[in-house]
Amino acid sequence: MKGEPVKYHYYTQLEWTSEKKGVLRCEGKPDIMVACPPEFGGHPGIWSSEDLFLASVEICTMTTFLWFADKEHLTIKSYTSKANATAELDGGVFRFSSIKIRVNIGVSSENDRKTVEKILKKVERACLITNSIQTDVRIEPEIFVG
Amino acid sequence: MKGEPVKYHYYTQLEWTSEKKGVLRCEGKPDIMVACPPEFGGHPGIWSSEDLFLASVEICTMTTFLWFADKEHLTIKSYTSKANATAELDGGVFRFSSIKIRVNIGVSSENDRKTVEKILKKVERACLITNSIQTDVRIEPEIFVG
Repeated sequence: MKGEPVKYHYYTQLEWTSEKKGVLRCEGKPDIMVACPPEFGGHPGIWSSEDLFLASVEICTMTTFLWFADKEHLTIKSYTSKANATAELDGGVFRFSSIKIRVNIGVSSENDRKTVEKILKKVERACLITNSIQTDVRIEPEIFVG
Repeated sequence: MKGEPVKYHYYTQLEWTSEKKGVLRCEGKPDIMVACPPEFGGHPGIWSSEDLFLASVEICTMTTFLWFADKEHLTIKSYTSKANATAELDGGVFRFSSIKIRVNIGVSSENDRKTVEKILKKVERACLITNSIQTDVRIEPEIFVG
């Protein structure tokens, strides 16, 4: 209905299995084994909430970029990123203080490079996850032409 | 070293594959296929940043609970949760406005029920992810004895 506020809803489920481990579920999607990370008394080699928090920012950065690229009719040759997050004590509680995302994008021309630069500026303000967190997020792009 | 601030670092990687899809990686952990969700022009049946953002809060709630349970020598029989999040336009940008987590915990005695209630109060203040986001998080517990 016109004038109705746009809202989206998301649903996940979790089941504890043993020790500090569980199974994460979302309807129609593959299950993910999850656990408390080793530094908080958990298990190595299993996705943790800390990993997935960082991942959600990294993924949203890419999908927001791809959304703008579509609008600008931009074709990219490649897109990879490496993200890191720091969690530390702040006022007696642990929180994520900073996230850095190094983005590498390959394009075919100098003109496309300019379009990528223009889009990346929009991405920083448009990412749904970045807008929902307190953590400072910095994107460091590297664009390759050829 | 004594007096050194405690900091933890997390690392993830992402590679665009095609359309609005990619592969999420974290060293030593299984890859996860990820995508832009259908409501933003993406794909169904694939984990999105929106799902994983919500999941990170749900998982951290469980692992923080398990951490306190250990300290209190509490043995639980079961722990499951169902989480939902709402994203909506707020001041011209989309952000997650609220998250609700319905937690079901099974224990053996009325005494254990009291311990669970005590721990859940601490979990709300101690969850690393909840402390790092702007979204309002509400935990709705249901505790079963028997």
